[in-house]
Amino acid sequence: MAEIQESKESLQESLQQVIALLHKHKLVEGLVHRQDMPNQPLVETIVHRQNLAELQKKLDELHPADVAYILEALPLEERLEVWDLVKAERDGDILLEVSDAVRQTLIADMDSEELLAAAEQLDTDELADLAHDLPKDVLQDLLESLDAGNRERLQSALSYPEDAVGALMDFDIVTIREDISLEVALRYLRRIGNLPDHTDKLFVVDRHDVLHGVLPLKRIVVSDPELGVDEVMADDAVVFHPEDKATDAAKAFERYDLVTAPVVDENNKLIGRLTVDTVMDFIREEAESDMLSLAGLSEDEDMFSSVWKAVQNRWTWLAVNLVTAFVASRVIGAFEGSIEKIVALAALMPIVAGIGGNSGNQTITMIVRGLALGQVASHNMKTLLKKEMGIALLNGLIWGSVLGVVAYLLYDNVALGVVMTAAMTMNLMLAAVMGVLIPLMMTKFGKDPAVGSSVLITAMTDSGGFFIFLGLASIVLL
Amino acid sequence: MAEIQESKESLQESLQQVIALLHKHKLVEGLVHRQDMPNQPLVETIVHRQNLAELQKKLDELHPADVAYILEALPLEERLEVWDLVKAERDGDILLEVSDAVRQTLIADMDSEELLAAAEQLDTDELADLAHDLPKDVLQDLLESLDAGNRERLQSALSYPEDAVGALMDFDIVTIREDISLEVALRYLRRIGNLPDHTDKLFVVDRHDVLHGVLPLKRIVVSDPELGVDEVMADDAVVFHPEDKATDAAKAFERYDLVTAPVVDENNKLIGRLTVDTVMDFIREEAESDMLSLAGLSEDEDMFSSVWKAVQNRWTWLAVNLVTAFVASRVIGAFEGSIEKIVALAALMPIVAGIGGNSGNQTITMIVRGLALGQVASHNMKTLLKKEMGIALLNGLIWGSVLGVVAYLLYDNVALGVVMTAAMTMNLMLAAVMGVLIPLMMTKFGKDPAVGSSVLITAMTDSGGFFIFLGLASIVLL
Repeated sequence: MAEIQESKESLQESLQQVIALLHKHKLVEGLVHRQDMPNQPLVETIVHRQNLAELQKKLDELHPADVAYILEALPLEERLEVWDLVKAERDGDILLEVSDAVRQTLIADMDSEELLAAAEQLDTDELADLAHDLPKDVLQDLLESLDAGNRERLQSALSYPEDAVGALMDFDIVTIREDISLEVALRYLRRIGNLPDHTDKLFVVDRHDVLHGVLPLKRIVVSDPELGVDEVMADDAVVFHPEDKATDAAKAFERYDLVTAPVVDENNKLIGRLTVDTVMDFIREEAESDMLSLAGLSEDEDMFSSVWKAVQNRWTWLAVNLVTAFVASRVIGAFEGSIEKIVALAALMPIVAGIGGNSGNQTITMIVRGLALGQVASHNMKTLLKKEMGIALLNGLIWGSVLGVVAYLLYDNVALGVVMTAAMTMNLMLAAVMGVLIPLMMTKFGKDPAVGSSVLITAMTDSGGFFIFLGLASIVLL
Repeated sequence: MAEIQESKESLQESLQQVIALLHKHKLVEGLVHRQDMPNQPLVETIVHRQNLAELQKKLDELHPADVAYILEALPLEERLEVWDLVKAERDGDILLEVSDAVRQTLIADMDSEELLAAAEQLDTDELADLAHDLPKDVLQDLLESLDAGNRERLQSALSYPEDAVGALMDFDIVTIREDISLEVALRYLRRIGNLPDHTDKLFVVDRHDVLHGVLPLKRIVVSDPELGVDEVMADDAVVFHPEDKATDAAKAFERYDLVTAPVVDENNKLIGRLTVDTVMDFIREEAESDMLSLAGLSEDEDMFSSVWKAVQNRWTWLAVNLVTAFVASRVIGAFEGSIEKIVALAALMPIVAGIGGNSGNQTITMIVRGLALGQVASHNMKTLLKKEMGIALLNGLIWGSVLGVVAYLLYDNVALGVVMTAAMTMNLMLAAVMGVLIPLMMTKFGKDPAVGSSVLITAMTDSGGFFIFLGLASIVLL
């Protein structure tokens, strides 16, 4: 009983062991080279082999998901060393478990033959998850190696966008007719002998594969075997269509606590099923991608991807940031005359801009989350704007006054203190309005509201903050 | 078949309908008041009643999760109007579905009697989820109303911290002995007649409730009924302990694709089970809380909470921000002499600080996510530091040079351009180092690495950026 439990608890330990073995291996290599012994090749080979054998044994004991975890946590060079040691027949399962970015590094390390061998161990729906990352010629070979039915399935799965139900569904469906008794159904199941993972229900179809209902295993085991399938089945199951959005499906899984659900075409013909494990992975990825997007990152960067790849990932939003920072700088440039006269302005202006930026980021994070949960839409925009502006006004008056007093004490200038308070309040209001409007506008124009929102709001509160503060100061103080 | 499917698709529509009914209702009220008709009470009452009846009917048709969704999406006043219309016997289920923040607003609107009535419809594990939000006297009454077994269960569930398996588990377990045949087991199940939600396996225990294995329903339906439970059961199931961390359990659910798993005490005695729907909710909440924490928000703020509550939620980190902004301002203050001589410095310094801030936020987001996934730990800190510093160096040299040229062109001063390039590069390096170290240090000291990280890194890159740029400029240019 405790077996897998222990492996779960010691996942970190496994990782440490793998790292230790890798390092020992390198250390030995290094020592041997340095001492330049006459019998070097022999010693090296023996110790080397011992180490590798131990490492390989360790890896063989681990669940594919655990090997994937270790691969994710290793820098590129060590990751590929470990990858070379993984038994070829496990390659496919492990490739499915790793993140997109890590998968690319592993696939880049394999030749066409190895890839084809790995792919051939997988089901059609698993292949569909992998296919996007495979080189074109391997994918072509793979398609040719499949029988007609599976080739058609794979091609149709590949035709759906990544965020559609069609791309997430699998084909491990067990179907049954409604005109038989449970007793007959049970005999049929015993003949099958083994049901696919996550099978919590059978799909009841007619001979044209049109879905008539679902028969939960739970009902089979508690019902009188004399009863007919049609008497026991549920005919109000939640069904999905392959073109449904995956986010909507995920919400339905959470809302109705589903384990599996049928996927049907426009004629209600059963074509696949959606399972909770796929949905759970999708939810995890979505939430992560929102968090990364806010900072202007795409999810394609793995923790140890090359510097060059990481630079490309972060480039776009840094470039946008460069332009916005330049604009902010020009706003200040326009007030150089005022700053020359009162140099205190230069020291105080970043406070106004900085607090506006942080406050705006708080607002935008709330709204992006609300949009993701479907709680925010244009109908409640006004309420949200009022709330955020109320918060900004309160914060602006309170903290603005504190800073106004500080500014007055530092520079012995009452008017400067008043300008500070007013500018803080106004910039926080600007941050509130933009924090609500930016994500809502992005959604309206069909963009992901999370992508780079943080960079945009900071741009507004920087330029805006400098303009408000320096402008007010120029009017009041000069 | 299509019934629930339609309700899923039209969730937004339901929300719109509820809002429309609420507004119509208010409009009528408003009209009647304004016209001040003699027979006002009568008209008001009739139209009012019609509207309310229609709204109530609409609400009764909806799944508790859908009513919860609508309550979340409504501003406080309208939320409470709708809440009053919900049938009392559904109160408990709906309270379970809403977020913590919204739940508090609903509970605040109910008297002790209503709360007790709502709570009495719930299972012990559901009560445990609610109990933290109930007023003390209601909780006391509730405990007294339970039988001894359930009272003990509730008290033990309440004794675990919110992020432990014990707080998430439920008690809907169906147990069976190993010394019977499947045939007998099936007869037993038919007597029970109905299995709890998510039952994908039975728990095989001895007469002391010690867990010996699990019997998946999948295996029951495909196996020969003559076989004994002990021959068919799996004895390598993943088990949890109530004090296990919920995050670890969630990772195990994802890794091993579980639907339910037994929870046992230190003597391997079965005490409850964990189900995938609870785990999925937990994952969703965790991911959200990370995203909100980065911006210095707690999850206790709902989208429409009062301005005052929201201000409190955001206050802490704004106050921290106020101090850090003040420090940055004092750094500039120390160089006022330099700025007086070269006013261009005032215009250029925010570029250095701002780009450093955004770049640092990118790094910190990557690291916080890596920590959450367990991919980042002290053993790979050096690799990550090297990578992030490499990115910073590259970005600093490239974008720093671009800005250096721009600064030279704007102010016709080569030395100023060189200072700009050098300062950009150094501040990006600072951002990289701090972006890796801040979350790792926070984890080391047992803090959540996401909380307020963004505010801290911005503080470093602001003060650091101003100091580096103005310091270099003072040395090189004056």
